[in-house]
Amino acid sequence: MAWSVYLAGEIHSDWRERIAQGAKDAGLDLTFSSPVTDHGASDDVGVAILGEESDGFWKDHKGAGVNAIRTQTLIRHADVVVVRFGEKYKQWNAAFDAGYAAALGKPIVTLHPEDHNHALKEIDRAAMATAESPEQVVGILRYVLEGKLAAGT
Amino acid sequence: MAWSVYLAGEIHSDWRERIAQGAKDAGLDLTFSSPVTDHGASDDVGVAILGEESDGFWKDHKGAGVNAIRTQTLIRHADVVVVRFGEKYKQWNAAFDAGYAAALGKPIVTLHPEDHNHALKEIDRAAMATAESPEQVVGILRYVLEGKLAAGT
Amino acid sequence: MAWSVYLAGEIHSDWRERIAQGAKDAGLDLTFSSPVTDHGASDDVGVAILGEESDGFWKDHKGAGVNAIRTQTLIRHADVVVVRFGEKYKQWNAAFDAGYAAALGKPIVTLHPEDHNHALKEIDRAAMATAESPEQVVGILRYVLEGKLAAGT
Amino acid sequence: MAWSVYLAGEIHSDWRERIAQGAKDAGLDLTFSSPVTDHGASDDVGVAILGEESDGFWKDHKGAGVNAIRTQTLIRHADVVVVRFGEKYKQWNAAFDAGYAAALGKPIVTLHPEDHNHALKEIDRAAMATAESPEQVVGILRYVLEGKLAAGT
Amino acid sequence: MAWSVYLAGEIHSDWRERIAQGAKDAGLDLTFSSPVTDHGASDDVGVAILGEESDGFWKDHKGAGVNAIRTQTLIRHADVVVVRFGEKYKQWNAAFDAGYAAALGKPIVTLHPEDHNHALKEIDRAAMATAESPEQVVGILRYVLEGKLAAGT
Amino acid sequence: MAWSVYLAGEIHSDWRERIAQGAKDAGLDLTFSSPVTDHGASDDVGVAILGEESDGFWKDHKGAGVNAIRTQTLIRHADVVVVRFGEKYKQWNAAFDAGYAAALGKPIVTLHPEDHNHALKEIDRAAMATAESPEQVVGILRYVLEGKLAAGT
Amino acid sequence: MAWSVYLAGEIHSDWRERIAQGAKDAGLDLTFSSPVTDHGASDDVGVAILGEESDGFWKDHKGAGVNAIRTQTLIRHADVVVVRFGEKYKQWNAAFDAGYAAALGKPIVTLHPEDHNHALKEIDRAAMATAESPEQVVGILRYVLEGKLAAGT
Amino acid sequence: MAWSVYLAGEIHSDWRERIAQGAKDAGLDLTFSSPVTDHGASDDVGVAILGEESDGFWKDHKGAGVNAIRTQTLIRHADVVVVRFGEKYKQWNAAFDAGYAAALGKPIVTLHPEDHNHALKEIDRAAMATAESPEQVVGILRYVLEGKLAAGT
Repeated sequence: MAWSVYLAGEIHSDWRERIAQGAKDAGLDLTFSSPVTDHGASDDVGVAILGEESDGFWKDHKGAGVNAIRTQTLIRHADVVVVRFGEKYKQWNAAFDAGYAAALGKPIVTLHPEDHNHALKEIDRAAMATAESPEQVVGILRYVLEGKLAAGT
Repeated sequence: MAWSVYLAGEIHSDWRERIAQGAKDAGLDLTFSSPVTDHGASDDVGVAILGEESDGFWKDHKGAGVNAIRTQTLIRHADVVVVRFGEKYKQWNAAFDAGYAAALGKPIVTLHPEDHNHALKEIDRAAMATAESPEQVVGILRYVLEGKLAAGT
Repeated sequence: MAWSVYLAGEIHSDWRERIAQGAKDAGLDLTFSSPVTDHGASDDVGVAILGEESDGFWKDHKGAGVNAIRTQTLIRHADVVVVRFGEKYKQWNAAFDAGYAAALGKPIVTLHPEDHNHALKEIDRAAMATAESPEQVVGILRYVLEGKLAAGT
Repeated sequence: MAWSVYLAGEIHSDWRERIAQGAKDAGLDLTFSSPVTDHGASDDVGVAILGEESDGFWKDHKGAGVNAIRTQTLIRHADVVVVRFGEKYKQWNAAFDAGYAAALGKPIVTLHPEDHNHALKEIDRAAMATAESPEQVVGILRYVLEGKLAAGT
Repeated sequence: MAWSVYLAGEIHSDWRERIAQGAKDAGLDLTFSSPVTDHGASDDVGVAILGEESDGFWKDHKGAGVNAIRTQTLIRHADVVVVRFGEKYKQWNAAFDAGYAAALGKPIVTLHPEDHNHALKEIDRAAMATAESPEQVVGILRYVLEGKLAAGT
Repeated sequence: MAWSVYLAGEIHSDWRERIAQGAKDAGLDLTFSSPVTDHGASDDVGVAILGEESDGFWKDHKGAGVNAIRTQTLIRHADVVVVRFGEKYKQWNAAFDAGYAAALGKPIVTLHPEDHNHALKEIDRAAMATAESPEQVVGILRYVLEGKLAAGT
Repeated sequence: MAWSVYLAGEIHSDWRERIAQGAKDAGLDLTFSSPVTDHGASDDVGVAILGEESDGFWKDHKGAGVNAIRTQTLIRHADVVVVRFGEKYKQWNAAFDAGYAAALGKPIVTLHPEDHNHALKEIDRAAMATAESPEQVVGILRYVLEGKLAAGT
Repeated sequence: MAWSVYLAGEIHSDWRERIAQGAKDAGLDLTFSSPVTDHGASDDVGVAILGEESDGFWKDHKGAGVNAIRTQTLIRHADVVVVRFGEKYKQWNAAFDAGYAAALGKPIVTLHPEDHNHALKEIDRAAMATAESPEQVVGILRYVLEGKLAAGT
């Protein structure tokens, strides 16, 4: 069985690429999906397709609706959900996705720097594992798929 | 992943063809399904297959049962449900399908002329997006699949 | 067990009162609920509480959100959902509520004049019974609660 | 029916008291619940009851588990979930609770200052209403319970 | 907690009364419900309330719809479903109710004479217990509620 | 999408073959499944694989358990469930399968001679269509898959 | 809201009484339930009520069916499930109940001596908290109900 | 349809290989999955990938989380769950997996020596079949897939 992994959260660093590359290098039978990571497109999609709004709240609302079609569908199809919290920004949508995945019974892996530990304690508690590097996430995915530890782990 | 899109509602204009053509032109990995759009077949199917009825209510009842096998199964399999309301007729089955999809947690896109806005406010509220043209629906599907806006959007 | 009955649909005639009175006269252990039937309040609630909107679409959207808190919660709690279609207006929210109830597996009773039969065939097919008068609905509720027919039925 | 309302999020201002007082003044048949709002107790509960931990991560983990028994149970029992984001802190657990409630199909009302609008757009989109003051939340609860607007609204 | 017990199946002997009396004598905190056991009312209810039908199939269909409102609602509310098969008739609705209850995860107790054992093997397999007398059913209910065997059992 | 159709019920006539042949002749993209139709194997499977039983009840119980692995799994995977009642025998497992499918929300087509109409009224009411011949079932499947009536229907 | 707590597992020590007493002393609004803790009754119930069996496997099978009516119903109704593993015996039914509760999304508290830690690691991982004494369980229940720590904790 | 079979439980004998070989010899269209059967890797995975722990409880906790990603996902995808109990050890995770599968409605086959019958009575009762040898499990799988008994059975 090919597992589906949804990569939620931060869009300002290359963590998704590092996980995808690591999985490829390890030859894992995985399909990755993610929210739209082009920040501008994600912000503008509502008004770009469906027409301008004068009020910023409704511009955001329109865009968020279109993005939710993608994110909620992909989370529902995922076998595992990885949620990344970066150094900056509020990243409330990452936490929202984690809660959404948790209520659906999806196994969650959180990925964040150690100094977020206290602020993320509820979400880490709802996760099956908490990693600090993309390489650790690859290690987890390799283990759950193939049942073995990488040499030198 | 190939997404499944159910196209509910109006059967008197070419909106389904326009969405299908637009999706094909954009090279999207989509499967479309719909209710039976041959109005005569849809009305007659019950009695044509299962025997005549003297009472119109039961003729309709028989036909609606057979059609429901198709529509409810396809909605359950769909990733996204587009619901079209045209200019004419009651179109209560379109609204029923929208409610059915909403309770199943399916993301909905409504498609209707602006002058229906007030009468459709409850259904638009349950939708993730409201479009006025089939081309906007294609734009949404393209974005949710590929994560990018068409050039010139 | 006291049954909960949700009365969806038309707000321009006294059908809810007639059902409630009939149930009271028959001494039935029933709790009735309904959408907000004050048309003006229902239309204005979003902006009245949460602030004005210049665009009618968003005014409607705000109001429909607040109303949906009520209607979806009450439908989820209901044992039986009665859906009334009157002579006039689009009444798409009635059809939406019927679809919503159907997908949740709630037993539905439709109530409408005979001349709507063809247009409502999909919804009548999803219902357990189709009535033409509020008194027939009372008769059904009496029977399902008490297991007997009214004298003279 | 007495509605249950879960009040998630910020614990550093008196918004819960203002909603409870407003509901009481309006005579609403409501039961409120919330996470533990004593910050110290919430942080320490794991080790206070189950024994010390030398590592902060596991201290947090123990406490978050005990708190989750309360929060997840109360959210599952709630008819409406209000999620408050204050001015300060990450408040990721508020966003997590919103996602959790959304996936369970609970109607959500968000409550936050306007300057959070852009950062909270995904969560506001998943909500049925977005308020800026506790009094607006009381107005919504009053309307969904009683079906009327307060005089002077 | 007061348990709800649905008594499905045969309506031509006094097994329901014997179970109810036995439960009362034992002082058990139980609520019993059942389909309508007045055979004539059950057959006629559709046309008696909703108008005559010339075709027997549709007369039955109308009546079965009204009865299903009662039976499916009560089965959904039940904690335990007892299904009785008597000596005579097809009793397909009893078997249907058993399948319905099984798919909902309700614990089932079957009650039938020994000579039905082979014909009912699939249904007995889906049940938690198979009894031959109403008194055995009372014994089971007493045990599951109070955790003890009757003296002299 | 290739539809899965489960053919429940009677095992003493060639109705399954006639449906399969009809579907093949019509070129329909269907997968059929069914309970084990070798009566002897179905009765003996429990003791043949898992060891003899001296008591007929437990022999049946063992066999019914093994058969239920097959039937319940296939019904859960089915898009449509056809339930056939023949002229003879109790056929309670057919009725049980119908109830099981109904509670899972699967669309049901019943197939039986007209003289069973009254005894099967509850099950026919839970079905989307009631047919008298395998050829009618093929007609229904053709219509729901292809959206058209056979020439000469 | 009065919480329901199911106390699964070991029946050879007084841990249930200690939890119940502690909860009573603390004035907590709790309802406790449990499997039948009379070992002899639990073993014999099947044959005592439903008739003797010559084969021990079927005697156990009959009894386990009757007990499952109680345990599965109470676990489904519970808000919290406490699972106790004592010093002796296999206690596989305790572990089964934990798995059953976990798949239903019930919050679990495990209670066992420290030397079981390694053998119970999968079940402790599925739990929200792991306690070593009944008094710690009371502390947890008090906290999740009242939101405060006992003085001197 | 290719069936998925999850093989839970004991990891110290060759029962999985014997089932896989038997299925291959019989040409069955089956996919097998299992927990990680390398005991050392299973114990160490948490700390090997995510960093050392000084406390054995948390080492186990970390490892159990990573293993649960695999086991719970595979059980959710399985059509049939086989649970093996060997001669030695507590094997509480096997019993936990059985409870987890039971609550999800998965058909279970237990496999264990006869002398475990009494201790496993609750789990055997929740299973569709109880086998003593891997070859019997192959016989069951062959029958449920192909509907026939092996020659000489």
